Amino acid sequence: MAIEDVLSDLKKKIEEKVPDGTTITSVEFEGPQLVVYTENPKNFADNGHIVRNLAKTLRTRIVVRPDPKVLVPPEDAIEKIKDTVPKDSILTNFHFDPDVGEVVIEAEKPGLVIGKHGETLREITKKIGWTPKVVRTPPIKSRTVNNIREFMRTNHKDRKEILKTVGRNIHRECTSKDKWVRVTSLGGCKEVGRSCFLLSTPESKVMIDCGVNVGSDDNMTPYLYLPEVQPLNQIDAVVLTHAHLDHQGLVPLLYKYGYEGPIYCTSPTRDMMVLLQLDYIDVAAKDGKRIPYESSNVRDGLKHTIALGFEEVTDIAPDIKLTFHNAGHIIGSAISHFHIGDGLHNVVITGDYKYGPTRLFDPAVNKFPRVETVITESTYGASSAIQPSLKEAEKNLQQIVKRTIANNGIVLIPAFAVGRSQEVMIVLEDAIRKGIIDDIPVYLDGMIWEATAIHATYPEYLNNNLRKLIFQKGQNPFLAECFKPVDSHDLRKKIINDPHPCVILATSGMMNAGPVMEYFKAFAPDPNNTLVFVGYQADGTLGRRIQKGWKEIPLSSKNGAEVVQMNMDVQVVDGFSGHSDRKQLMDFIKKMKPQPERVFTEHGDERSCIDLASSLHKKYRLETRALTNLETVRLV
Amino acid sequence: MAIEDVLSDLKKKIEEKVPDGTTITSVEFEGPQLVVYTENPKNFADNGHIVRNLAKTLRTRIVVRPDPKVLVPPEDAIEKIKDTVPKDSILTNFHFDPDVGEVVIEAEKPGLVIGKHGETLREITKKIGWTPKVVRTPPIKSRTVNNIREFMRTNHKDRKEILKTVGRNIHRECTSKDKWVRVTSLGGCKEVGRSCFLLSTPESKVMIDCGVNVGSDDNMTPYLYLPEVQPLNQIDAVVLTHAHLDHQGLVPLLYKYGYEGPIYCTSPTRDMMVLLQLDYIDVAAKDGKRIPYESSNVRDGLKHTIALGFEEVTDIAPDIKLTFHNAGHIIGSAISHFHIGDGLHNVVITGDYKYGPTRLFDPAVNKFPRVETVITESTYGASSAIQPSLKEAEKNLQQIVKRTIANNGIVLIPAFAVGRSQEVMIVLEDAIRKGIIDDIPVYLDGMIWEATAIHATYPEYLNNNLRKLIFQKGQNPFLAECFKPVDSHDLRKKIINDPHPCVILATSGMMNAGPVMEYFKAFAPDPNNTLVFVGYQADGTLGRRIQKGWKEIPLSSKNGAEVVQMNMDVQVVDGFSGHSDRKQLMDFIKKMKPQPERVFTEHGDERSCIDLASSLHKKYRLETRALTNLETVRLV
Repeated sequence: MAIEDVLSDLKKKIEEKVPDGTTITSVEFEGPQLVVYTENPKNFADNGHIVRNLAKTLRTRIVVRPDPKVLVPPEDAIEKIKDTVPKDSILTNFHFDPDVGEVVIEAEKPGLVIGKHGETLREITKKIGWTPKVVRTPPIKSRTVNNIREFMRTNHKDRKEILKTVGRNIHRECTSKDKWVRVTSLGGCKEVGRSCFLLSTPESKVMIDCGVNVGSDDNMTPYLYLPEVQPLNQIDAVVLTHAHLDHQGLVPLLYKYGYEGPIYCTSPTRDMMVLLQLDYIDVAAKDGKRIPYESSNVRDGLKHTIALGFEEVTDIAPDIKLTFHNAGHIIGSAISHFHIGDGLHNVVITGDYKYGPTRLFDPAVNKFPRVETVITESTYGASSAIQPSLKEAEKNLQQIVKRTIANNGIVLIPAFAVGRSQEVMIVLEDAIRKGIIDDIPVYLDGMIWEATAIHATYPEYLNNNLRKLIFQKGQNPFLAECFKPVDSHDLRKKIINDPHPCVILATSGMMNAGPVMEYFKAFAPDPNNTLVFVGYQADGTLGRRIQKGWKEIPLSSKNGAEVVQMNMDVQVVDGFSGHSDRKQLMDFIKKMKPQPERVFTEHGDERSCIDLASSLHKKYRLETRALTNLETVRLV
Repeated sequence: MAIEDVLSDLKKKIEEKVPDGTTITSVEFEGPQLVVYTENPKNFADNGHIVRNLAKTLRTRIVVRPDPKVLVPPEDAIEKIKDTVPKDSILTNFHFDPDVGEVVIEAEKPGLVIGKHGETLREITKKIGWTPKVVRTPPIKSRTVNNIREFMRTNHKDRKEILKTVGRNIHRECTSKDKWVRVTSLGGCKEVGRSCFLLSTPESKVMIDCGVNVGSDDNMTPYLYLPEVQPLNQIDAVVLTHAHLDHQGLVPLLYKYGYEGPIYCTSPTRDMMVLLQLDYIDVAAKDGKRIPYESSNVRDGLKHTIALGFEEVTDIAPDIKLTFHNAGHIIGSAISHFHIGDGLHNVVITGDYKYGPTRLFDPAVNKFPRVETVITESTYGASSAIQPSLKEAEKNLQQIVKRTIANNGIVLIPAFAVGRSQEVMIVLEDAIRKGIIDDIPVYLDGMIWEATAIHATYPEYLNNNLRKLIFQKGQNPFLAECFKPVDSHDLRKKIINDPHPCVILATSGMMNAGPVMEYFKAFAPDPNNTLVFVGYQADGTLGRRIQKGWKEIPLSSKNGAEVVQMNMDVQVVDGFSGHSDRKQLMDFIKKMKPQPERVFTEHGDERSCIDLASSLHKKYRLETRALTNLETVRLV
C-alpha cells in the first residue's frame, strides 16, 4: 500500500474513535510517531485514554497536535500558562514553534508544570491550544545544552521535513519473502575503540555506534567501506549506546559521506555527544592533527537526532523496534534491545555497562520481554579482572585525600571529563558534607564542569538516591559549594602560584594533554603532593610512565624541552570504573531474564573477549563466541 | 602507476631481453596473459627459453603473437602446415583469426602437430607467421563442442575487447592499506543446491560457483541480493568448480543483472556448462516453468569464459592467483586454490570431489604449495555415510546384468547425463570386452550421448588408464561398438516394440521426466526386466517411490492418467558416486599436504556438515565449523 493510502486509512480509523465534534485536520508520520492534527485538542486533553487506546489499536506512538487555527497568540498564552501552574514551578523561558503548534516551557521544577498524571499540562493545553513541552531549566548553565536547544529551535523547519521523511521510511511496506537477521562487526571486536555494528535484515539496516579509536592512526575508523554498509544512504538508522568517543566519534563522518537518516540516542547522550565531538575537533586542531570531518557535520548529526527515553518501544525500521534500557555506564548510556520482525528475533547490544550500583547510576538492566542473542562488552572480561568494590575505592580515595591535606599537600586527579569525574565529585562532596574530610575546595578544570552541567540537566538519568536528593530534598550535590570550576587562566594561575590544600580534578585522563599538565608541572617536585589515578592508563601515555616509576619527566614547553622532577606520591585507586568487572559481566548474563541462547563478546582486548566467551560457555552452557572485526554472523 | 605506463615499462623490459633484430610492436594484457606482438615471431620460436625467462622475471603469463605484417596468406599457410606435420596427424580443419594472428588447427592427433616439447609447432610458426593453436578433432561429433568453437570464432573481436578489459582490470594497482580476506556464504551451506561463495579482499571480489537448486522453488537461487555481491559489476571474476547445475546453473543470471567480468573454468566445464544451461532452459519451457534468464545470457557467459587447465597458476585479480587441480568428480571438475596477497593467505575451495580412483578420473588432488583454510563439500559427511567400494559396485552391476540377460530381460538404468552415465558405460564396455557379460547393445538415450561426446573431446581430463588406452592403444572405450545412441523416435519405438536383451541408460536420473519414462512404461510390467538405480533418489521423486516398493504407479500420459503395473526387479547399486564418502572426506583432510589450519564444511544436509566438521575437529584438532548461508567469515 502506498504511504498516502496508509495515512488516509489511519485518519479514518482515528475519526471513528474520537468523540463527536472532533475535527482531524491531518495525520502524518513524523519520526517514529504518528502525529494527529486537530482543531479540538481539548477533546483529547479531556480524554487521556483516547490517545492511549489509539496507540494500542494502531500499534504506534501517537502525538496529538493542534491545528494552527486554534492557537492562542503567544503573549496571551504565556499569561494563561503562568496563571495555571503553581508559583514554585519557577518558569524561566518560553519558546513557541508554530510549525508543530508547540510551546517549550523551561521551568526549574518541570514536574509541577506537568502535574499529577499530566493534569496541569492538559489544563494548559486546553487554555492555549499550543501543545506544551516542558524542559528543566538547567541548574548549572550549560553552554552545550543552551546551544543545542537554540539550534533545534532555529532548525525546526528542516527537522520537520527530516522527521516526515524518517517517519515515512519507517512505515514503508515490507516486501521480502526471506526472513533473516545478520550482524556485521565493523569495529570494536577483540579491541577497544571504534565500536561499530551493523544489524541487517532483508528489509532494513541499522548501525549501532560509530566510534573512533583516538589512540591509533592505523586503526582509527571502523570498516565503513565494507559493502554491507555501502552506500550509507541505504542505512535506516544509527543507534548510539552512549556518548564516549569510541562509540560515537565518527558519526559526523557518516553525514559527510552521504548518510541522511536519523540518530537514536537518549537526550544526555545527544548533548554529551555534541560536546565531545566539538572538543575532539578542537583538540585535534591544537595538536595539528586532521580529523576527517568538520563542525558542520556535527550539526548535521544533531539535526537528525531523535532522542528516546528508557523503556520506550520505538519503531526505527519497518521490521525493527528499539528499546533503550539503563546501562549504568555514564549518563544516558543505554543497553539497546532490538525486536526484529513479528517475534522473529531479539538482540540485545549492551554497549558499555556497569552491572552494579555506583554513586551516579542504577545497575544495568538485564530483564527483557524476550532475548535470544546478546552482544556484550568485555573490557574486564579476563578471569583475572576483578576490581575492588566501590566502597573500598571510596575509602581508599578519602584516606589519600585526608593524608595529603594533613601534610598540607595538594591532590591532583587526572580524569576523563565524562563519567569518572562526576563519580569522584560525588564521593568527595559526600565525604566533605559528612565531615570525613576537611572542607577544602575541589577545583574542576578542562571540560569537567561543562560535562557536570549536562549531568545536572538530566537528573532523571541519575540513580534513585541522587534523584531523591535533588527532587525531594532539594540538594543537588553538583551544586555543592566545594566545587570550583576553573573558568579562567587567572584562576588557574592563582591555584598554581598560591597553593593551598585542595583537590584538583583535571583533564586529560591519561595525562597526554590538557590542563592537568600545567598543574602537574607545578606540583610534581613537592613530595607532600599526591597524584591519584582513578582510571586506566594506556601504554605509551605519560600516566603509564609515571605508574612505572619514572622520576625525571621530559616535557616540551613554550621555552623548549624541560625536565620535571617527579617527587609526588603516586597512588592508583581502582574500583571507580564505569565498566562491569569480570564477576559483574558473568553475573549480568547469568541473571539475565529470560536466558539468552547465544552470547557474543566484543569491546575488550583479544584475551578478555575470548576468556569471557569461553567462561560463559563452560559455566552456563550457552553458545558463545568472541566476534572478529569484518565478519558477518547470522542470527536467524 | 597508470596501466599505460605499466605496459610501456613492460615493453622496455622485454626489449632488453630479446635477441638483436627483434621488433616488439606492442604489448597488451589480454585476460590473465601478457601478449607480446612482434614482427619476428621466429626469434621467439627459435629460443623457447626467452618466453619462459620473461615470464619468470615479469611474474606473469606471456604469449607471443605475430604482428599482422608478417602473416603468410591462409591458403599458403595451410599448405605449409600440411608439409610440416606427420601424415598421421590427420588434419581435419583450419581457422584463421587475423585479429590475434592465430590459426586453429583441428587434428585427430594433436600431439603430433605439437611435437616433442612443441618442436613441430615452433616449426610451423616459423614458416607461416601465424601462431598455431591445436585442438583435437572431436572423435564423436559433439554439437555442443562444434557450436562453441564456432561461437568463439565469430565473436573473436568482442572477445578480444573483453580480454583486454579483463587483463587491465587484473593488473590494476592495489591501493588499500588494509589486509584482510573474507568469505561470504551465498548458498549451498547446510544444504545441497545453489552453491555460491564470495571471496573478498579490500581490493577484489571473486565469486566461486553460482548454482541453482532445481529441487526448490523457495530456495532456488543463492542470496545474490546481499550487499557483499552488489553491484554485480564490481565482481572481478567468477570461478566455476564444475559443470553441474547446482554449481553453475545461475551464471547466466549474473550477466542478465550486470556482471561483465570473466568466468574461469576448465574447457570441459565450459562446454558442459553451456550444454546443461541450454537444456535447463529447454526442460523448463517444456514443463511450463519460467527460468530467470534466456539463452542470450548463456551466450554472454560463454563469451566471457576463460578456460584454464589444471596446475596453471593464474592471476585473476590484482591480489588473487587461482590454480585449478583435478577434483575427480566429473569431467573438468576442479579444486580451486586461491593464493591471496603476497603470501598473505591460501584458501582451497574443493567444490565436489572424489578422493579415490574411479573408472574415469584420478583421485582428487590434496597437495598444495601452501594452504591455511579449506572449504570442503560434505555430501557424505555423516559418520554413517560409508559407501561400498567401486569394485563391489561394478561386480554387483555386472551380476545384475548377467542375471537379467539370462532371463531374456532388459536392464533399465535411469542416470544423470553427466558423470555417472559415463562411469557405468566404461564398466559395461569393459565387462563386454572381457566377455564377463554377453555382447548386448547398450542404448544411450537423452543427453547422455552428447555428454559422452564432450568426454571424448577431452581425454586429457580422464585418468591415466583411459588416457593410455586412448592415446597409446588407440582404444577409445566411448567409441566401442556396444554403445548405441538413441538418436531418433523410430529407434526408441523399435527398442520398445521389439524388445531384446539389452541395457538402456536413459535420463532423467530420478525418473521425474525424460526418455527413461517411456522405457519404464513399456518394461515395468515384465518381472524379467530389471530397474537399476545407480544414483541418489531424492524425496518426492518417482525413483524414491519405486525404491519404497510402490507397485501401482499412476502416470500422466497423452491419453490422460494411466496406472503402470510395476513388476520389474528393482536393484540399488551404491558405490558409483562421484562424491567422496565419509572415509574419503576424512582422509582427504588428514592426508592433505601441508596440513591446513582451519576447515569449513558445506554442501551437505545440516547433519552431514556438522558431523563432518565436528569429527575433523575431534580427530585432527583443526579449527572447524559448518558454514551457514548468509554469513561472512574472516580468514585473515
